[in-house]
Amino acid sequence: MPLPTRMAREIAEIPEAAARLLSAGQAARREAAGRARARDPALLVTVARGSSDHAATYLAYACEMLLGLPVASLGPSLASVYDARLKLGRALSLTISQSGRSPDIVAMTRAAARDGALSLALTNDPASPLAESAALTLALHAGPERAVAATKTFVNSVIAGLALLAEWAGDSSLLAALETLPEHLLTAVNFSWPTLRKALSDRDSLYVLGRGPGWAIACEAALKLKETCRLHGEAYSSAEVLHGPVSIVRPGFPVLALAAGDRAEAGLADIADRIAGMGARVFASSDLPRHGERLDHIRTGHPLTDPLPLIVSFYAMAERLAAARGIDPDAPPHLRKVTETV
Amino acid sequence: MPLPTRMAREIAEIPEAAARLLSAGQAARREAAGRARARDPALLVTVARGSSDHAATYLAYACEMLLGLPVASLGPSLASVYDARLKLGRALSLTISQSGRSPDIVAMTRAAARDGALSLALTNDPASPLAESAALTLALHAGPERAVAATKTFVNSVIAGLALLAEWAGDSSLLAALETLPEHLLTAVNFSWPTLRKALSDRDSLYVLGRGPGWAIACEAALKLKETCRLHGEAYSSAEVLHGPVSIVRPGFPVLALAAGDRAEAGLADIADRIAGMGARVFASSDLPRHGERLDHIRTGHPLTDPLPLIVSFYAMAERLAAARGIDPDAPPHLRKVTETV
Repeated sequence: MPLPTRMAREIAEIPEAAARLLSAGQAARREAAGRARARDPALLVTVARGSSDHAATYLAYACEMLLGLPVASLGPSLASVYDARLKLGRALSLTISQSGRSPDIVAMTRAAARDGALSLALTNDPASPLAESAALTLALHAGPERAVAATKTFVNSVIAGLALLAEWAGDSSLLAALETLPEHLLTAVNFSWPTLRKALSDRDSLYVLGRGPGWAIACEAALKLKETCRLHGEAYSSAEVLHGPVSIVRPGFPVLALAAGDRAEAGLADIADRIAGMGARVFASSDLPRHGERLDHIRTGHPLTDPLPLIVSFYAMAERLAAARGIDPDAPPHLRKVTETV
Repeated sequence: MPLPTRMAREIAEIPEAAARLLSAGQAARREAAGRARARDPALLVTVARGSSDHAATYLAYACEMLLGLPVASLGPSLASVYDARLKLGRALSLTISQSGRSPDIVAMTRAAARDGALSLALTNDPASPLAESAALTLALHAGPERAVAATKTFVNSVIAGLALLAEWAGDSSLLAALETLPEHLLTAVNFSWPTLRKALSDRDSLYVLGRGPGWAIACEAALKLKETCRLHGEAYSSAEVLHGPVSIVRPGFPVLALAAGDRAEAGLADIADRIAGMGARVFASSDLPRHGERLDHIRTGHPLTDPLPLIVSFYAMAERLAAARGIDPDAPPHLRKVTETV
């Protein structure tokens, strides 16, 4: 038996890391929620890259749905390259970074504070330069992450943000759903989607579909397919994919529809069926599509936590798919753990 | 000699369509700029899909750089699927749609106005449902667009938005750069990047890189590669590509670096060189890279107009690449001109 990879060990740790964050981070979240409420911002701005930016996309939908607060994703180049001055006197800024060390992310966070924003950081390293430059920091409590591919820190970034937004909005149903989330993640980590893994073992290209917060999960899945499986996965909103991208669908082209149990599920299933009708081989985490192949999934009972078990099952699949494609997911070509860009 | 395609004819019309917009649309832009200035919004929110959303991304960078106003891209599903109520009393909303007919785009525009935003539409059809539902409309003056792939309406969407922002900011250097832009577009339409076209004729997958407004152009190029050439092109910010996506680079993997003449050019050239060092076959619209192949380009003298000639040269390349790959760019598989999603 080969030893498990770092990535496999860290995926297995997701449920306990989530439970640890929910208990250990509560006091800090309540304080930050109080500060945010007192500030009463007109908008939230987010600063992030890579997997952390997918967490920011997820939280943008949650913020808009829970608080009605519009969310602007700021390109870090605005500070690090273009030296733009922004009007952020009515803004709360949210920076997400596992390491807290990428220079452009730290520079954009400092620039947002200089331009008037109340700055909040989510990071796994509360002693990082990012944490030192933000007015408020929420630790991710994920424990050390050594694999190149972020997994448990992605999930904890989303949970930390959701719990903050739930406290801020005083949303007791979301707070209750978060409490039971770790047990759903434990169920999900044991789905590893073997039929999907086999179908992707010799492919070069696929689409990953989602909608709303599920689209953020699709973005994260597509990045992991590239990063750890050397497979050109690209994410699309199920509403965008018919605007041009479907043109590349040939018979057997794989499509992964990451459908969560929310208001978008029926529409996503319908689009999955339409693409199956074009000859694609469609896999969907839903019971609604009439065509294609069903992936095991568990529903959490809340639309804003429902996409998270899907990414955990996906991670478990991707780690094994890498091996099936002859790739060590702990040593993908050309990559290091912390990418420093300016 | 085969007759030119609709797409080829409409690409050839870009310079005159741009000139027509700059003169015919001036009075309406000045009025809209005055209304926007009087409103003094705390943020801009954008509503768009497909190519129009790439125009919105371009204009988001321009708005943040020229006016310091943060820009939130709203997922149309917030209105059409999730029925979210947003706090937009301090917002200006900008909707971009060639046809003005997609139901989710119209619904999101109406919802933004209901929630307090001053709503502005950019559309090629001033009699469309979108134009009827927005407080202010700027016509694109592109003339009828009959090809499935949007080309001249994309360019005119960007120009209309830039001219509005320049009036709003009172930026005479950008206004002057826009006046001379049509002649630069005429030069660019005759660059058709034959070495790139030949390199892509038998490929399946590539990356298109850009940064800032040039990243929006990269997104538009990647969509056209899928839509009209059945080639899986994906766009990345040159700062994002090293966070995982480079893992799929194998010897000969094509990379198109759409470098414009702005502060990001040197950094983009450096990243292009690093990816060339991993074995990629890199094409760049810049004289700065030490490796890879140079693409003809013209500089416009202003960083915010400089990416536009690049997309015109790209369109001319893509229309011919489609033919080289045996595809009629006027009849790509699975597509219609107006995509209606909810």
